[in-house]
Amino acid sequence: MDIKIGAAEMAPFLDEVFPQIRGQFSIQRLDAEALIMRLHVADQHLRPGGTVSGPAMFALADVAAYVAVMSRVGREALAVTTNCSIDFMRKPAAGADVLASAEILKLGRALAVVDVRLVSEGGTEPVARATLTYSIPPKRQP
Amino acid sequence: MDIKIGAAEMAPFLDEVFPQIRGQFSIQRLDAEALIMRLHVADQHLRPGGTVSGPAMFALADVAAYVAVMSRVGREALAVTTNCSIDFMRKPAAGADVLASAEILKLGRALAVVDVRLVSEGGTEPVARATLTYSIPPKRQP
Amino acid sequence: MDIKIGAAEMAPFLDEVFPQIRGQFSIQRLDAEALIMRLHVADQHLRPGGTVSGPAMFALADVAAYVAVMSRVGREALAVTTNCSIDFMRKPAAGADVLASAEILKLGRALAVVDVRLVSEGGTEPVARATLTYSIPPKRQP
Amino acid sequence: MDIKIGAAEMAPFLDEVFPQIRGQFSIQRLDAEALIMRLHVADQHLRPGGTVSGPAMFALADVAAYVAVMSRVGREALAVTTNCSIDFMRKPAAGADVLASAEILKLGRALAVVDVRLVSEGGTEPVARATLTYSIPPKRQP
Repeated sequence: MDIKIGAAEMAPFLDEVFPQIRGQFSIQRLDAEALIMRLHVADQHLRPGGTVSGPAMFALADVAAYVAVMSRVGREALAVTTNCSIDFMRKPAAGADVLASAEILKLGRALAVVDVRLVSEGGTEPVARATLTYSIPPKRQP
Repeated sequence: MDIKIGAAEMAPFLDEVFPQIRGQFSIQRLDAEALIMRLHVADQHLRPGGTVSGPAMFALADVAAYVAVMSRVGREALAVTTNCSIDFMRKPAAGADVLASAEILKLGRALAVVDVRLVSEGGTEPVARATLTYSIPPKRQP
Repeated sequence: MDIKIGAAEMAPFLDEVFPQIRGQFSIQRLDAEALIMRLHVADQHLRPGGTVSGPAMFALADVAAYVAVMSRVGREALAVTTNCSIDFMRKPAAGADVLASAEILKLGRALAVVDVRLVSEGGTEPVARATLTYSIPPKRQP
Repeated sequence: MDIKIGAAEMAPFLDEVFPQIRGQFSIQRLDAEALIMRLHVADQHLRPGGTVSGPAMFALADVAAYVAVMSRVGREALAVTTNCSIDFMRKPAAGADVLASAEILKLGRALAVVDVRLVSEGGTEPVARATLTYSIPPKRQP
């Protein structure tokens, strides 16, 4: 699928639409083949013991899937999360960022479905997986 | 089901095990019939337009289900989220806290399943629903 | 919500659109307050030991949610399952039918979300729960 | 991961434990790298229009994930489906079998998590995806 918004344009777009998460996430890779987002793990994302919390992993999966969809549909569109199923499978490594790879399984006119896998940086086995559905409302007529 | 940890004991327990979320959530009601958690909506939970973000609703559902389970199994136990499916159904009301009601559907020896409904305070229709599964590891022998 | 198709009209409608499942399911109750479907448990729905299989419970949840949605939107509409999350929590009782109660959580113009609880007839604790999302395509213009 | 039960042994094992589904499914490939199951589409799996029904796709995903897990844990073990999230993304092709590829994401002592993708034979885009969790009860002591 062609990319309508590349990494250089996507980063300031994210800062604009989601100012609350500025600095927490960055785009590691964004091209026609792959989207990889990084969670810059900080104290606010941790549980006692130094492991990344479930809500922080959910937030990473959500922003990764959102960026994957928006990069294809373009910034004049909207994409609203309607459903997520997420499995937490292993404890993330302490002291490591978490990386999310998003794969678009369906990009229809009204719905997009995206699979996301999360790994601790330097690790190989997934710490979590998620599938998210986005509703893409019809564009407003000019 | 009997309550092993009531609201008075649960609040400091939450502060102790999840210091990162201190002040964001509070227990509205906790007894044998119901558990209701409140998200004190602040700027960090918002999306542009003043609506509560998906990750903030996920975090609320997770802490509500966790508190419901821990109130029954007691604080010497552990409960780890293994799965969540969540549906975002309506835009939360701007300027209103979000309340989560948790219902324990199963409390087995190894797994607990909890349903959660989220409403904006003062509203009637659910803004989101979630089902969460917790793994309850065997207690360590003394 | 008002009912557009009542039980008397729904049963032959189901036979017409889903001839493959004729005789397996019946409508126990359908009115403005509730929808309850029955799975007439037969040999084809069983696992060794006499317990109802997961796919049979999924099929019951799907048809119950479908009937709940169609009863509200009317038979000129379509409703296509796009997502289901289901938790199997207890072994169904041997030799008992399974009853499914459906509750519509959202009925939007494009999407409907339905919660379903399954119990063995005569039992009280849920054997399974499911949440299903239906896409409701725009009606074709005449 | 090593295979404890290969295809030659798995087929009669499935017939033995699931006699109700005999003839509906077959193992297309089972080795250390992959598990592919086939749904032999017959009239009982169809919806009007000739498309494969949701419950038939759920049953295929469930048996594929079950076979993937059992091939690793061996036939003296048990594996019980506790959760499934499934997305139906495209209409299956009429007149084509459906193939399911299962990937084990986690195989722990108590829980296994399996991703499954379904394609119509001859097609490339997934018609559905599912993630299933299996509980693996402790082995009974001899």
